[in-house]
Amino acid sequence: MTLRELADRLQCNLTGDGDVNITRVAAIEQAGPGDVTFLANPKYQSHLATTNASAVLVARGTSAVDGGPALLECANPYLAFAQALELLRQVSMPPAGVDASAVVGTDVTLAEQVSIGALCVIGDGASLGARTIVFPGVVIGPGAVIGDDCVIHARVSIRERIQLGHRVVVQDGAVIGSDGFGFVRLADGTHTKIPQHGDVVIEDDVEIGANTTIDRPAVGETRIRKGAKIDNLVQIAHGVSVGERTIFAAQVGVAGSTQVAEDVVLAGQVGVAGHLKIGKGVIATAQTGIPNSVDAGTMISGYPAIPNRDWLKSSAVFRQLPALKKRVAELEQRIAELEEKLSE
Amino acid sequence: MTLRELADRLQCNLTGDGDVNITRVAAIEQAGPGDVTFLANPKYQSHLATTNASAVLVARGTSAVDGGPALLECANPYLAFAQALELLRQVSMPPAGVDASAVVGTDVTLAEQVSIGALCVIGDGASLGARTIVFPGVVIGPGAVIGDDCVIHARVSIRERIQLGHRVVVQDGAVIGSDGFGFVRLADGTHTKIPQHGDVVIEDDVEIGANTTIDRPAVGETRIRKGAKIDNLVQIAHGVSVGERTIFAAQVGVAGSTQVAEDVVLAGQVGVAGHLKIGKGVIATAQTGIPNSVDAGTMISGYPAIPNRDWLKSSAVFRQLPALKKRVAELEQRIAELEEKLSE
Amino acid sequence: MTLRELADRLQCNLTGDGDVNITRVAAIEQAGPGDVTFLANPKYQSHLATTNASAVLVARGTSAVDGGPALLECANPYLAFAQALELLRQVSMPPAGVDASAVVGTDVTLAEQVSIGALCVIGDGASLGARTIVFPGVVIGPGAVIGDDCVIHARVSIRERIQLGHRVVVQDGAVIGSDGFGFVRLADGTHTKIPQHGDVVIEDDVEIGANTTIDRPAVGETRIRKGAKIDNLVQIAHGVSVGERTIFAAQVGVAGSTQVAEDVVLAGQVGVAGHLKIGKGVIATAQTGIPNSVDAGTMISGYPAIPNRDWLKSSAVFRQLPALKKRVAELEQRIAELEEKLSE
Repeated sequence: MTLRELADRLQCNLTGDGDVNITRVAAIEQAGPGDVTFLANPKYQSHLATTNASAVLVARGTSAVDGGPALLECANPYLAFAQALELLRQVSMPPAGVDASAVVGTDVTLAEQVSIGALCVIGDGASLGARTIVFPGVVIGPGAVIGDDCVIHARVSIRERIQLGHRVVVQDGAVIGSDGFGFVRLADGTHTKIPQHGDVVIEDDVEIGANTTIDRPAVGETRIRKGAKIDNLVQIAHGVSVGERTIFAAQVGVAGSTQVAEDVVLAGQVGVAGHLKIGKGVIATAQTGIPNSVDAGTMISGYPAIPNRDWLKSSAVFRQLPALKKRVAELEQRIAELEEKLSE
Repeated sequence: MTLRELADRLQCNLTGDGDVNITRVAAIEQAGPGDVTFLANPKYQSHLATTNASAVLVARGTSAVDGGPALLECANPYLAFAQALELLRQVSMPPAGVDASAVVGTDVTLAEQVSIGALCVIGDGASLGARTIVFPGVVIGPGAVIGDDCVIHARVSIRERIQLGHRVVVQDGAVIGSDGFGFVRLADGTHTKIPQHGDVVIEDDVEIGANTTIDRPAVGETRIRKGAKIDNLVQIAHGVSVGERTIFAAQVGVAGSTQVAEDVVLAGQVGVAGHLKIGKGVIATAQTGIPNSVDAGTMISGYPAIPNRDWLKSSAVFRQLPALKKRVAELEQRIAELEEKLSE
Repeated sequence: MTLRELADRLQCNLTGDGDVNITRVAAIEQAGPGDVTFLANPKYQSHLATTNASAVLVARGTSAVDGGPALLECANPYLAFAQALELLRQVSMPPAGVDASAVVGTDVTLAEQVSIGALCVIGDGASLGARTIVFPGVVIGPGAVIGDDCVIHARVSIRERIQLGHRVVVQDGAVIGSDGFGFVRLADGTHTKIPQHGDVVIEDDVEIGANTTIDRPAVGETRIRKGAKIDNLVQIAHGVSVGERTIFAAQVGVAGSTQVAEDVVLAGQVGVAGHLKIGKGVIATAQTGIPNSVDAGTMISGYPAIPNRDWLKSSAVFRQLPALKKRVAELEQRIAELEEKLSE
């Protein structure tokens, strides 16, 4: 694609030679001739003088460098970078059709242009929407319903009767609809399994990371709402609800029946106890442990979680605790001396 | 099933119309006509007046509400709920038999009514007990021995020579018998792998969660004892022993050779170091980090783990640390003033 | 194998009957006749008098016990133990060849003695080196390049164009090359996916644990360098670099673009934020949370991570915080009394 064509498709202003052929998107330090790169953060502007890229996506108003790369001024360079990656994609997606080695059950509905990879298993009565791609080794249970334009990567489990909306992306090895961890403790201390036959609903535009697990409940549903993005190795227990546009980083765990509102961000390895309400827009920094419900708009840290600002201050003092303890001991010594003096 | 028949099978006292047809178990707030629900916790008794369920499983002595649902009085409503879910199960289990697409090795022993799903691989010399169900995409290694009435969900790995008892349930994607993480560090700083050929024994009535990993040791065994329940994404290292009826919530990790006794509860994301002994009945709250052995009957929290009661108190003070530090500084100021006064 | 032959092959000095037949390596407390065991730690020397093993691998200079087992003196008993396990391996590896049920794409290169197990999927243009073993149910994407003498256990995903060096071992269920977790946040709060088409390079002699996930970046590469060893359920985000001989214990998580140097050890459940530099030889104890770059040679603990020595001292005081707070309150009381006395 010529740089001019790329500029047109990304709706960018082009400064420089529009005839150069662009074949790849690359990071600014690794880019070479034929590459387009991006400068999302103005503080790295010095890279403009040193990059070997043919062109750079930049914010409007960025000045070109003499002898430097062509510039593509755009409203949102980071978004243009994402779009350029899609336009210059060198990876071909699997063709439509059902691989001969796949095992497809009875009464399966496959909409137009569905692609089913090698050695997939599609259970009886399952339904897949238009243009959905299922990579090899995926197991889809009976009665599962998957929308249009989904991408299900290799070796995913989607259990019986699970529902996925449109444009859902599931990375390799994820499990959707495994049994919730529910047992009744009997008088002799043993645990009887509570059958877990509830639903899991994954709404439109959700992404689910590799080897992430999402459990189904005994009754009712587990629900991941529109546009939520969930990273790798995340645990979502039975009956949890995850709000729209909410982000869970890798290795987050949310215990049963907790309701997470929209626009929440849980950073890596955060844990949330069961039966809580996490309010809209809550941000929890990495490794936070959340034992209680959290009000909307709060930023929290630590375990047990407290407001981030308090946690930062307390953590600073934590490091000084041995010194603080020594100061208290010295005070005790000095006050004892004063007391003695005064009692004389 | 009529409500009268359900009451008989659950051994409950019925108050209300026994002829109504019951088709589903549902949560009390979502239930409608034809549904049975349950009231395990008396504090939600007000729901009896508002639920649309046809019948409610309640503790003995619960009063019916005028115009409200039929009541099923039972000794343990939560257990009756679990049993009702089983009785009203709408999910059919796969039929007995070996799917034509499965790859079954030589000298494999399949007891009566075994079900092997599509695209499973059963290694040479493996043995599966009566009525055991293996869902699609499972790989069972050579010489593995699996008992009666097990349920192995899709895409599980059970490695060579691993042993499972009866009524073991393994959720999707779990790995049993992967190599323990054992290396010899050489003088040049590189690490040589110690071959891991030991055993893993999963005793009767164990449940293993989705994408959980249980390693085998170099020599000796890793053992999960009778009735232990292990949630998703848990790591159990080589040579670990997990006691009877012990519960590990999601994302727990236990390092090599640690012996966990019976009736222990480790909440979500707890970590346990290697070569420890965790005594009978120990409870560790979520995210606890356990660097040392723990006496039986202790409830612990924090990292490094301390008694829960101490941790709660210390955590409360942690939040006040900046204020405490200020108070110490003020004391230093006041005492300096007193010292000055007295020295005059 | 006779004990004499074993001694020769391990280059050990033999004291005792070299004609005894050795069939197995076992732990010193479980070993019986025909077993060889090892004594790596001199503090367990008393076991020499009680073990039923036929022979024990010991450090040079260890004295035999009257009527006790034969001794094999060696420079490094733990290394000899690893070698003995390999020599006495009772597990046969799968034979070379491609299982009839595997689905192999076009233009696939298989070097001599490659073994492809049942129901594997090998994408178009992939390449596997000599003697590499692929267990059942593995999915290898188009264009992936795998070196010689690798062992890929069951149900692993190796995505398109991923590169593995020689002697790489991947445990069951691991995912290499899943999409990095990268999104552009738009003005309306929704997130647009950034296509992730970058590379993952796994260098020689790396081990990757069961159900571990290693993401690919949008551009550039994720790289695991020579001899790094990564345990189960570890998350390695897009663009991370892991240094030579570095060790990650189970459930570690490293966020995007972080560069971990050589000879680092991250213990279980450690979390590392994105865009950091972790210096050579850094050691982080279990559950450490690392929000900032760390200088080479540092041992760190806690969250936020501080030097291990400081953390140990502060953690000791943490437990005494309620008492410390009480001491401060008492001081305030005593000083108020003094102030009153002096103002009289």
